[in-house]
Amino acid sequence: MINDAFYMDLAINNAKAMKGQTEPNPLVGSVIVNDNRIVGVGAHLKAGEPHAEIHALRMAGDNAKGGTIYVTLEPCSHYGRTGPCAVAIVEAGIKKVVIASLDPNPLVAGNGVKILEDAGIEVVTGVQETEAIKMNEVFNKFITDQKPFITLKAGITLDGKVATHTYSSKWITSPEARQDVHQLRSENMAILVGINTALKDDPALTSRIPNGRNPLRVIMDSGLRIPMDYQVITDRQADTWIFTSKNHNPEKRKLLEQQGIKVIITSSETSVDPKDVVKILGEQGISSLIIEGGGNINASFLQAGLIDKVILYFAPKFVGGRNAPTFLEGTGIEEMKDAIELNHTEIVPIGKDYKFIGYPSYND
Amino acid sequence: MINDAFYMDLAINNAKAMKGQTEPNPLVGSVIVNDNRIVGVGAHLKAGEPHAEIHALRMAGDNAKGGTIYVTLEPCSHYGRTGPCAVAIVEAGIKKVVIASLDPNPLVAGNGVKILEDAGIEVVTGVQETEAIKMNEVFNKFITDQKPFITLKAGITLDGKVATHTYSSKWITSPEARQDVHQLRSENMAILVGINTALKDDPALTSRIPNGRNPLRVIMDSGLRIPMDYQVITDRQADTWIFTSKNHNPEKRKLLEQQGIKVIITSSETSVDPKDVVKILGEQGISSLIIEGGGNINASFLQAGLIDKVILYFAPKFVGGRNAPTFLEGTGIEEMKDAIELNHTEIVPIGKDYKFIGYPSYND
Repeated sequence: MINDAFYMDLAINNAKAMKGQTEPNPLVGSVIVNDNRIVGVGAHLKAGEPHAEIHALRMAGDNAKGGTIYVTLEPCSHYGRTGPCAVAIVEAGIKKVVIASLDPNPLVAGNGVKILEDAGIEVVTGVQETEAIKMNEVFNKFITDQKPFITLKAGITLDGKVATHTYSSKWITSPEARQDVHQLRSENMAILVGINTALKDDPALTSRIPNGRNPLRVIMDSGLRIPMDYQVITDRQADTWIFTSKNHNPEKRKLLEQQGIKVIITSSETSVDPKDVVKILGEQGISSLIIEGGGNINASFLQAGLIDKVILYFAPKFVGGRNAPTFLEGTGIEEMKDAIELNHTEIVPIGKDYKFIGYPSYND
Repeated sequence: MINDAFYMDLAINNAKAMKGQTEPNPLVGSVIVNDNRIVGVGAHLKAGEPHAEIHALRMAGDNAKGGTIYVTLEPCSHYGRTGPCAVAIVEAGIKKVVIASLDPNPLVAGNGVKILEDAGIEVVTGVQETEAIKMNEVFNKFITDQKPFITLKAGITLDGKVATHTYSSKWITSPEARQDVHQLRSENMAILVGINTALKDDPALTSRIPNGRNPLRVIMDSGLRIPMDYQVITDRQADTWIFTSKNHNPEKRKLLEQQGIKVIITSSETSVDPKDVVKILGEQGISSLIIEGGGNINASFLQAGLIDKVILYFAPKFVGGRNAPTFLEGTGIEEMKDAIELNHTEIVPIGKDYKFIGYPSYND
């Protein structure tokens, strides 16, 4: 059916195709329709280049006049590198504007709509809004909180284990799921593990897919126990930042810094508070972070309400064992009714495994 | 598309509609086609009544002559209460027989096909075979092993927990999932729990749905610790059998038997071996058993290779906790490569939860 949702889906689709190339800007797509004919499409391609609406208006040329423009994000009202899109839309003679989602920045949300309405243009908002918001979940979080959008990822057995009771863990998930993890790493600006996970596996934490972009590697290591010959210290494949406590060994710190490793001293005496890590990463412009365990790190971030999204790869197998480590440890919740619920959940098959996606909702 | 699979799917569909009313016989459906027109459909309705093919042949009457019969299970070759269907098919003048699955009983498998082929009839087997075998999974197991088909069921959080570390467990899953469990109980001849689960919850273990059939209640209780005022002892909603060890209290046994409870002494001194339980249940004609935990009972059945099917209801929530009980405990597997894999897996949404179904494959 050709309706507003149809055109907006096309705009969303074009926007999504630019995933990974617009940072620090959001994904935005646009479609212009006149007399039941598409006369222009556009997407934001790269920071510093025109916004989606401008591309679409240029393609439409004179055909924009009297037409309807669909745009996945509220047209901007500010004079940045490309001028306010809302004004460009008015000047092009557009009659109607259909918007999926308003600007996530509460300071400017609605300003674009106001310019349009003041010019007598009909404005419709909220068309395919959920999808439009979701595709910019990272951007939306960072622009409002100045903190990274945090994804908890784990590859687990059906009984929630990340290893057997003897700590045997290779491999839990299928090659397809592991490939997907490398894609995920490539899409995130940073990856975080705890020192116990690092000590156990000597992981590279890189994105091993064609054209993969390696994330910044973040290690929480209150005692600076990381061995100097580990991959994250020596391989120079990506930057490594180590968050440690006040009570660290200053000589080890010096050695690490000599290797080009950034050592960040947090506010706690003998531990590292996840909230400190997230705050500092945000201040450093890190807008997306993926957490890859282990169970205590995962639990500490989750119980602090810091996880925005959860991705679990369930391998259809059992290991059992009272003492086999799980992906979520710590103390846990007291009462079942206070369990952390996940919303907007979905499960899709991937190889022999299942990929679960959900968004925790924290009770304040 | 109208092809063999189309007609067989119709036969399977009719067969499945009789679920729960054919015991101890399997589900069987049949369709007769002549000159591209369906001239008869049939299903086995009830033990002692005609087989599916006979119903279909009767409906077809003279139109069976020269036609093709589709049947989900190999036509029988034995002279039972209804005579061999293979002979009836020959006598009706059928030209071609399409079969989904051969008889699961290795002693008679192929005998029906032989009668048909000896009479010059074209026979095709294996059409929609997987689905046809699956719908009779309970029957197939019992007919070959004389042991119940065993389903392990658990309602768990995404992190595999059945309760918080304080043993709070109400409710994990949604009303829709719990309803489905009552359906499952109704479809199984028996339900089994360990004494720890019984002591914790005083469960009724009944099927609380309209027209639900209560399964036989089986408790593994090596020390006969079950309190005399518990529902399974007093409510008379269904029979209760208690499997205990040689080293039980004979006076408690007498008390239980006075309440109409069957107490079965197994071969072990101080514990109850799952294999004993399964063997005895099979000897008593119990063809299907659902196991509802706890974690140690589940693990002991799984590690003994006794579980045929697994149904997990995943509630999209986390409780965390190193010490929160999971649905699979015990010692567990040593090496990840030896994990018990599940085949023919599927996941479907149910309420806010996800229902996982899989079939363990045991490495011998």
